[in-house]
Amino acid sequence: MSTSTRHLLAGLLLVSATSAVGEPPSRLVDFRSDEGEQFLVQAEARRAYFPLASHFVCQEHRSFCGVASMAMVLNAMQVSAPAVPELAPYRTFTQTNVLDAATEAVVSQAMIREQGLSLDQFAAVFATKPVTLSVHHANTSTLDEFRARACDYLARHDHFVIVNYLRRAIGQEGGGHHSPLAAYHRESDRFLILDVARYKYPPVWVTAADLFSAMNTGDPTVSGTTRGYLLVSGK
Amino acid sequence: MSTSTRHLLAGLLLVSATSAVGEPPSRLVDFRSDEGEQFLVQAEARRAYFPLASHFVCQEHRSFCGVASMAMVLNAMQVSAPAVPELAPYRTFTQTNVLDAATEAVVSQAMIREQGLSLDQFAAVFATKPVTLSVHHANTSTLDEFRARACDYLARHDHFVIVNYLRRAIGQEGGGHHSPLAAYHRESDRFLILDVARYKYPPVWVTAADLFSAMNTGDPTVSGTTRGYLLVSGK
Repeated sequence: MSTSTRHLLAGLLLVSATSAVGEPPSRLVDFRSDEGEQFLVQAEARRAYFPLASHFVCQEHRSFCGVASMAMVLNAMQVSAPAVPELAPYRTFTQTNVLDAATEAVVSQAMIREQGLSLDQFAAVFATKPVTLSVHHANTSTLDEFRARACDYLARHDHFVIVNYLRRAIGQEGGGHHSPLAAYHRESDRFLILDVARYKYPPVWVTAADLFSAMNTGDPTVSGTTRGYLLVSGK
Repeated sequence: MSTSTRHLLAGLLLVSATSAVGEPPSRLVDFRSDEGEQFLVQAEARRAYFPLASHFVCQEHRSFCGVASMAMVLNAMQVSAPAVPELAPYRTFTQTNVLDAATEAVVSQAMIREQGLSLDQFAAVFATKPVTLSVHHANTSTLDEFRARACDYLARHDHFVIVNYLRRAIGQEGGGHHSPLAAYHRESDRFLILDVARYKYPPVWVTAADLFSAMNTGDPTVSGTTRGYLLVSGK
C-alpha cells in the first residue's frame, strides 16, 4: 500500500469515526441576514472582527484558503508588509507576496496550488512570519477548551483564530477549508467565520459544537490526527 | 492655452473657491477604534454594510479606487459575475475581470491606470454593467439633499452609494478618491467610508458636512463641475 493510500484510508477512517457520533449540523446563519446582523451587534467577543473586516479578502485560487487567511491576519496585525509595485510606495500583504523564499522552503507554492495546506503545513508556513502561534488539533482538545480559548483570543487586541474544518460537516459543499474566526455570540453559542471563499459562501455564524465537530475530522493528506485551529498573536 | 491647462486651472479655481468657505475638517473616527465599533452597533442606516463588508477589497493599483469600488458593489448586489479561471467553476467580480470590452470602449484600462476616473467617467464605465445608477455632482446639490439620499440608500436592500471626494479636504493625504459608503450614524452625523485604499487608510467615520465639502471640490481633469456621488441599485 502506498504512503498516500495509507494516509487516505487513515483519513477516511477518522472522518467515519468522528462523523458517526455527530448530530446533523444546525442551520448556518448568514452574516448578511437580519439575524446575522443582530448577532454581530450583540456579540461579546468581537475585538478581532474590526481589524479582520478591514482586511477581509477573497482567496485568489481554489487552494489558497490558507494563503488568503494568512495575508488577512498579517494585515490585521499590522505586521510590517512587503512592497507591492502597483501600490508603491505603500506596502501590504497580498496573496502573491505573502508567499516568499521562506514559505517556499517549507511548502512550495506549486504544492499549495495542487492540494492546499494541512493544518500542520499551514502552521509551519505561517511560522516563517514574525508572529507567535500555536496549533491545536481537535482530537487532542475538547469543545469546551476550544470555545474558551477562541473566545479569549477574539476578545483581545492583536489575537486571532484561524479554523481548519471540513465544510461538509457544517452542511456546506466542499472539503477541508481554512478561514479566520471574527466574533463569538454567547446566546446562540455561535462563532462568525469570515469565509475567504467569498465566490462561494458568505460569512456565516456556526454553532461552536458544529464547528468543533467539523474540525474533529481527518484530513486525507495526513494520518493519525485531525483538523483543528491556529491561535496567532504578536511576536 | 491647451485644453488640459484650461481644465487644470478651472479645477484649481473650483477647489480654491469651495475650500475657502470650509471649516477645518473634524477628526476622523477609525472603524477599528472603540468609538468606531460603537458607531456601527448604533448605526441606523447600515443595510448596505453587510453585503459590502462581505466583498470589501483593497484596490490593486494606485488608480483603481473606482475599479475596486465597482467590483465590490457588483458582488454585493450579486450581479451575475464573469468566470475566474483560478476559481472555476465559481464566478465573481475581480478588479481584473470587471474591466472588459464594454468598459474599454468607454475609458481604456491604460487611461484608468494613468489617471484614474473622474466621477462622470466612473459613472459611464459603471453604466456598462446591469445596474441602475444616477450621478450627483456636489455643486448641483446640497448637504441636506446628500444626507437624505445617502441615508435612504444605505437603509435599503441592494442600494449603494459610492462617493468621489478629495482626501485632503477630510484631513487625509492624497487627491481625489472613490469608495463606497456603508452606514450612517445619526447621533454623530457621520458616514462610514469603506476605503478601498486599505494599504493606506482604515475604514473611517466622517461627518456628513466634511464629506460633502470634500465632494464639493473640483477634479483637475474636469472643468466646470465638482466631485460628488453615485447612487447604484438593481436593474
